Amino acid sequence: MRAYTQVVEWVEGQILDGTLKVGDRLPAERDLATRLQVSRAGVREAMRTLAAQGVVRSGVGSGENAGTVVSAMPSEALTRVLRLHVALANFAMDDVVAARVMLERSSAGLAAAHASPEALAEIATPLASMTDEVDRLGFNDLDTAFHIAIAEAGGNRLVADMTIAIREAMRLPILRELEQLGDRWPDVRTRLTAEHRAIHDAIAAGQADRAAQLMEEHIHSSRRLLHP
Amino acid sequence: MRAYTQVVEWVEGQILDGTLKVGDRLPAERDLATRLQVSRAGVREAMRTLAAQGVVRSGVGSGENAGTVVSAMPSEALTRVLRLHVALANFAMDDVVAARVMLERSSAGLAAAHASPEALAEIATPLASMTDEVDRLGFNDLDTAFHIAIAEAGGNRLVADMTIAIREAMRLPILRELEQLGDRWPDVRTRLTAEHRAIHDAIAAGQADRAAQLMEEHIHSSRRLLHP
Repeated sequence: MRAYTQVVEWVEGQILDGTLKVGDRLPAERDLATRLQVSRAGVREAMRTLAAQGVVRSGVGSGENAGTVVSAMPSEALTRVLRLHVALANFAMDDVVAARVMLERSSAGLAAAHASPEALAEIATPLASMTDEVDRLGFNDLDTAFHIAIAEAGGNRLVADMTIAIREAMRLPILRELEQLGDRWPDVRTRLTAEHRAIHDAIAAGQADRAAQLMEEHIHSSRRLLHP
Repeated sequence: MRAYTQVVEWVEGQILDGTLKVGDRLPAERDLATRLQVSRAGVREAMRTLAAQGVVRSGVGSGENAGTVVSAMPSEALTRVLRLHVALANFAMDDVVAARVMLERSSAGLAAAHASPEALAEIATPLASMTDEVDRLGFNDLDTAFHIAIAEAGGNRLVADMTIAIREAMRLPILRELEQLGDRWPDVRTRLTAEHRAIHDAIAAGQADRAAQLMEEHIHSSRRLLHP
């Protein structure tokens, strides 16, 4: 096993068994190299990879906080990997749609039950900009923002992270489909905007079941509109 | 921006916009360094990180297949990151339970609708070993295997990947809870095994709604049993 792999697996094992927690300092490079009997260059390489993934970060200053500490992996680190995974893994499109329906039904229901006035405003803002003037690129960005705002409004961080990652992975494939619509584009924009509005209204009215049902219909309907 | 970050973001951008696909060769290290105006060491470092994440792999031999090629990110790369994310991100336990209920309801329903005889056997095997002789460590491994086999049997790779990652992230926290049960352990084992058997039977009978419902009750019930 390469030195690098050995170090990464050791750190991950310590995190998963709860020995290393967020904010804990890792052993010094020299000590870790001795403990695992690997080169210091291997330790450095492993730390760079773990830092790139948001698992550790370099501490600043000296004393207790110096050295490399375990970091609370930001949501972006997960959405980035999930987004790449969806882009590369060549999942069957039916499977991605089924996963979106499951996650976004849940997000829409949670948003109807829990959304704060501020979270509702975040959902309403992109919707208000989906006018007749907006082009495909602009519409796609507003569409992504609308679905992400609903995921955030639900208040379940883990569900939101998974929802956002899959929606972001769909941004470019959806844009490409919008570009192939030709003359049908204004009609599709009107239909999708009306569906978004109905979902927003159900969430604002606190109707969880209706919001979830409308979200499910919207995901299936947009797929039919984009693949007629 | 560091050379390394610039290279990683360039590769990811090319993948997300569909320019680079699985099996495509990346530009040579020297060409990439020139194009992005960064050092060759920066390119090498970025490639090592991307390789560690399963995004690229080194080609072998010479000619068309030599150099670094885009790789179909394996499921393990996603489950690994999601597992670490759940371990570090300190999600509220209620949120993790809600995400599990959503994912595993879906997996159980899909498994009832689609499981092949081989997939059913994979679900039955760990269940058959949950006897009175099994200890907490052994039970926890069988429990994990049972839930993973159901996710696999559903046949939706993306839902399975997310389900497995969260279940694996729970392996050690659940083991720690099993260890704290004291005298209640044999009773809890009997209860959980009976719930597993009912879920298996509903899946084997092709009862999707019942399998999903029993899975939801089981996830809530095990949480109550472990946090009385």
